[in-house]
Amino acid sequence: MAQALVLEERGKLSLREIALDDTLGPDDVRIAIHTVGICGSDVHYYTHGAIGPFVVRDPMVLGHEASGVITAIGERVTTLKIGDRVCMEPGIPDPLSRAARLGYYNIDPAVRFWATPPVHGCLTPSVVHPAAYTFRLPENVSFAEGAMVEPLAVGVHACVKAKIQPGDVCLVTGAGPIGIMTALSALASGASQVFISDFSAPKLAIAGRYANIVPINLAETKPAERIAARCGEGWGVDVTFEASGFETAYQDALDCTRPGGRLVLVGMPPRKIAFDIVAAQAKELSIETIFRYAHVYDRAIALIASGSIDLKPLISGSFPLSEGIAAFERAAEGRPEDVKLQITL
Amino acid sequence: MAQALVLEERGKLSLREIALDDTLGPDDVRIAIHTVGICGSDVHYYTHGAIGPFVVRDPMVLGHEASGVITAIGERVTTLKIGDRVCMEPGIPDPLSRAARLGYYNIDPAVRFWATPPVHGCLTPSVVHPAAYTFRLPENVSFAEGAMVEPLAVGVHACVKAKIQPGDVCLVTGAGPIGIMTALSALASGASQVFISDFSAPKLAIAGRYANIVPINLAETKPAERIAARCGEGWGVDVTFEASGFETAYQDALDCTRPGGRLVLVGMPPRKIAFDIVAAQAKELSIETIFRYAHVYDRAIALIASGSIDLKPLISGSFPLSEGIAAFERAAEGRPEDVKLQITL
Amino acid sequence: MAQALVLEERGKLSLREIALDDTLGPDDVRIAIHTVGICGSDVHYYTHGAIGPFVVRDPMVLGHEASGVITAIGERVTTLKIGDRVCMEPGIPDPLSRAARLGYYNIDPAVRFWATPPVHGCLTPSVVHPAAYTFRLPENVSFAEGAMVEPLAVGVHACVKAKIQPGDVCLVTGAGPIGIMTALSALASGASQVFISDFSAPKLAIAGRYANIVPINLAETKPAERIAARCGEGWGVDVTFEASGFETAYQDALDCTRPGGRLVLVGMPPRKIAFDIVAAQAKELSIETIFRYAHVYDRAIALIASGSIDLKPLISGSFPLSEGIAAFERAAEGRPEDVKLQITL
Amino acid sequence: MAQALVLEERGKLSLREIALDDTLGPDDVRIAIHTVGICGSDVHYYTHGAIGPFVVRDPMVLGHEASGVITAIGERVTTLKIGDRVCMEPGIPDPLSRAARLGYYNIDPAVRFWATPPVHGCLTPSVVHPAAYTFRLPENVSFAEGAMVEPLAVGVHACVKAKIQPGDVCLVTGAGPIGIMTALSALASGASQVFISDFSAPKLAIAGRYANIVPINLAETKPAERIAARCGEGWGVDVTFEASGFETAYQDALDCTRPGGRLVLVGMPPRKIAFDIVAAQAKELSIETIFRYAHVYDRAIALIASGSIDLKPLISGSFPLSEGIAAFERAAEGRPEDVKLQITL
Repeated sequence: MAQALVLEERGKLSLREIALDDTLGPDDVRIAIHTVGICGSDVHYYTHGAIGPFVVRDPMVLGHEASGVITAIGERVTTLKIGDRVCMEPGIPDPLSRAARLGYYNIDPAVRFWATPPVHGCLTPSVVHPAAYTFRLPENVSFAEGAMVEPLAVGVHACVKAKIQPGDVCLVTGAGPIGIMTALSALASGASQVFISDFSAPKLAIAGRYANIVPINLAETKPAERIAARCGEGWGVDVTFEASGFETAYQDALDCTRPGGRLVLVGMPPRKIAFDIVAAQAKELSIETIFRYAHVYDRAIALIASGSIDLKPLISGSFPLSEGIAAFERAAEGRPEDVKLQITL
Repeated sequence: MAQALVLEERGKLSLREIALDDTLGPDDVRIAIHTVGICGSDVHYYTHGAIGPFVVRDPMVLGHEASGVITAIGERVTTLKIGDRVCMEPGIPDPLSRAARLGYYNIDPAVRFWATPPVHGCLTPSVVHPAAYTFRLPENVSFAEGAMVEPLAVGVHACVKAKIQPGDVCLVTGAGPIGIMTALSALASGASQVFISDFSAPKLAIAGRYANIVPINLAETKPAERIAARCGEGWGVDVTFEASGFETAYQDALDCTRPGGRLVLVGMPPRKIAFDIVAAQAKELSIETIFRYAHVYDRAIALIASGSIDLKPLISGSFPLSEGIAAFERAAEGRPEDVKLQITL
Repeated sequence: MAQALVLEERGKLSLREIALDDTLGPDDVRIAIHTVGICGSDVHYYTHGAIGPFVVRDPMVLGHEASGVITAIGERVTTLKIGDRVCMEPGIPDPLSRAARLGYYNIDPAVRFWATPPVHGCLTPSVVHPAAYTFRLPENVSFAEGAMVEPLAVGVHACVKAKIQPGDVCLVTGAGPIGIMTALSALASGASQVFISDFSAPKLAIAGRYANIVPINLAETKPAERIAARCGEGWGVDVTFEASGFETAYQDALDCTRPGGRLVLVGMPPRKIAFDIVAAQAKELSIETIFRYAHVYDRAIALIASGSIDLKPLISGSFPLSEGIAAFERAAEGRPEDVKLQITL
Repeated sequence: MAQALVLEERGKLSLREIALDDTLGPDDVRIAIHTVGICGSDVHYYTHGAIGPFVVRDPMVLGHEASGVITAIGERVTTLKIGDRVCMEPGIPDPLSRAARLGYYNIDPAVRFWATPPVHGCLTPSVVHPAAYTFRLPENVSFAEGAMVEPLAVGVHACVKAKIQPGDVCLVTGAGPIGIMTALSALASGASQVFISDFSAPKLAIAGRYANIVPINLAETKPAERIAARCGEGWGVDVTFEASGFETAYQDALDCTRPGGRLVLVGMPPRKIAFDIVAAQAKELSIETIFRYAHVYDRAIALIASGSIDLKPLISGSFPLSEGIAAFERAAEGRPEDVKLQITL
């Protein structure tokens, strides 16, 4: 039995003891959890009890953005040792699946992902995890930053898929946590300038504090006009990352991307989008869709350690586990100036 | 003054004399036209007087799928000579445009394209064209086949963009002329098997006569079930080419393509499509959009000459220029067993 | 104890009983071997006792190009069943290795490969193998063809790496078994024409019997002149596959490939090659190196089944296991008209 | 007649009047030259009279790394205006050539390149140049930096070809001007850390002053050991850029790059290199070769303007044109602490 932050059912959280499997396999490590970030999906399970086909039917421990310290290692583990400071990929694939063998373990339908029903998450003092999906943190990367690697990985993966070329000018539609981290990832991946569009002035203000990120307030400015002023009439940004899931953003993406450019669909819209295929064809856009991430944790950590990506301004508040329920309530408020709230254990 | 098949206005064709520019520049060749295919866009200008923003406001010569014989060459031309049998790319870009310099001449907004208003087409006995966009036909490729290179180029370009890998299994949605030529291009590009879906039994019968093309009659069979039987449950085709522009085909594409697969959007739907972005993301599909073609005429000709692509079964009828108006009237009927009608001069 | 063709030491083969591990794991299948091809590496171990760092120190069963029938399946196997006709990839990687997780299982240094010391091969009536590396043969693919999938896979993998585009013109330097199978793979991958160069007239005669393969006899013709006649002065083939390991072939490759073309290094030269880097740079060639293959067995089988690749003319002789030693002796003769010799069990 | 720095013949420079073509075509601009960097190739023509097949047979103006101010524009020029501060690509291709149409204008054999015999360079107060190859400098990029764009473009082009992924660890072999600028380009393209190897301590000291560049002194340290300490035994850097042309560097590249990694050949060795192809194959390395650059001037300028690349520490000295001959004499000394010397007009 271990203490944990448990979603009992829609709208009901407990901090209580729960029975969790703690068996250490030969390729596993055991980790004392230090910090766990609260993700929008955690909040959505709390407020709605489900995300699409994933429905919370039994009490489930929340949390999947975590860092900690290794306390035990399995007998075949050679790459990590007790005492290592680490962060963890929350998805565990079957290495023999068809997708995993091809290198796409993130789209293996059999993947088990923390805090996606019926799999428990990591808001509990100790977890067991495969060593292959556990990554050492360099000394200059804090536990708080380590717990930010998970959402950052989405942005880095989007940039890998975007095949950013050095000097690219980019647009990110949506200045939520994933939008901002995608913008930071784009700059760290070689972009020279990233525009970011949103209706929320406070979110844009946070993004705009970073060098080479240029906010576009959709309440005041048409993105296509702003982009034409930078890139020339009849041209556009090299890459657009759609990170809002908001219907009008898809049209902005089509209007703002240059002929031969790329469009990466990061945001997950709640329903089908009326998409102007002929407009995309007239520019021969390449469109990439992404699902979580694969093979980027070590990349994301290296870019934090090198100073290319500074996540500290995005950590808006930190709470002890004893105040974990209050932390979720604040997260559920959705204050525009809160980018990331974290819980420490 | 030259004789030509002229679209006077919506619904009204004439075979008459018209004044056409015939100046031979230093990098040009003059071609005696032999065969011209009738394209769906020619028919659409005839029946509707416009395609999207392109409106026929003045009499315009139709035709852009042509082959012929060179009768004169400009002073700087070294790659072609009088008497060469040739076919021609109907779009003439500005070689100094930003898109053309990058190698994307097809998406240069300044491109001048035969029989796209206000540019005259080639249903006239002699045309002048840049040597750079005029291609020699090998002896074993007929004029009729040469005039098929233009629509075939769309299919070959789609396959280049699809980055087909040897042995890929593909799906083409839509068994119109472009759908069938895309299926043939996919086989010639390395696919081992191509499924093609349509509601029209006669069209499917034509496609199904080719080895390794498997028809799916949408009136009888769900494509996803047929594909699962071939590729395994939870998997799918490597590449889907959407070649119908029909709303339900986009959902078929999402249902039938494997995780990590590619989707090429060839068909041009008449309006926005309600597109399930989350379904694409769950499989991390890469989506390519195409606009005409670039750098593939020589490739298409080589695949006809090698025997990899046999277009002859797709030529459904041939008419002398004197019967050109009747040919257009038959094309406007849209008989399902007519794949391509041609006019000879 | 099982009967097997055993290499006792350099130059000494026995057909005798040997103790082999036959444990069926939960993800494994057991296969009754039907046909095994003799590879140049098998012959080299026989004649030299070693290949580079791989030295035969203990008696080793030879053979790694095999087909057969499944006789038992492990408890977790769902994709195969008893009675399936199959062929097998001879390399077994560690699915948790860094390379395997990235999708490059072929370059995992820990891979265990049949008949590479100290791992036993498959010239024995029954073997156990992972289901993930065992592939069902369609009805129209014979056991003899199934045992050819292994060498063909090298050619198909080379073509995947070459990113062949439809209509490409290619050159293969070297008309040995791998050279010919690479040429066939290139045609099946979209090439419209493949030149193949060698000094051996009998080998070129075998290759030249295939449509669209053009032999270049190096004793009579300079490849660069022949290629210029086809592709134009100052231009060249789109892709060259070096499949001989012979020093002068590398210069031919540089001379014959077009600006912006690709060069795939398939042949393994016995020593360092004096390579003209500046000549490659002047054309900005992209050079791919390959090691065995990955993810192509199903592709190779599909291309045989579709009729795109016909391997039957390359099977030069077949021997029962009782004459296996004689078969190796003939293989060691290196008759130029022998492409592939096989042993049936 | 215009004043210019003229290479009369091997070893003999003059500052004198010379007749130069100054005709302004409709697509051209005229530029008052402000700053010209001295390149190793300029010095090599001075000291040797030739580079490979390019021999100085007549007096030739030197210089090809230039910035300046537009003083006149041709009648069709719309993208630039009088007074614009600019830098210029020194190679002028034929836009209708086969290579240029494909987008590879840098490997068009017909390209005319400043200060490559018999084409004059730009060490003269005024030049005429195509607008398409003239690039506006943002306000925060100085003329001195503008004249550095040319050598920087080599590094940026190498990184485009390397397809750097965010967080990559890289190695550059050779700490000359191109090596250092390639290292800076790699960091700006998404690398998290770049090792740079050389025998020259002063050169390494200059490189090592930049964050995330780690010098390896070849007189003291084996690169493979240093890289293994960072990347793990049996692994290596993601990308190696060979920028020395020195024979042992190619082996270092093979030893230090990871399985599945990429190797970019930037340095131009004076003779053939004994290259271990089997070592490259065992890791399935992809090898890119580069020749100058294409489509990267705007990218390089954007990365300077964004602050991603700081070239100022690399400008070791600046001389007025009247001291131009002395500047070349100092450049010919090859002081290890001189990265780039410039001449202002």
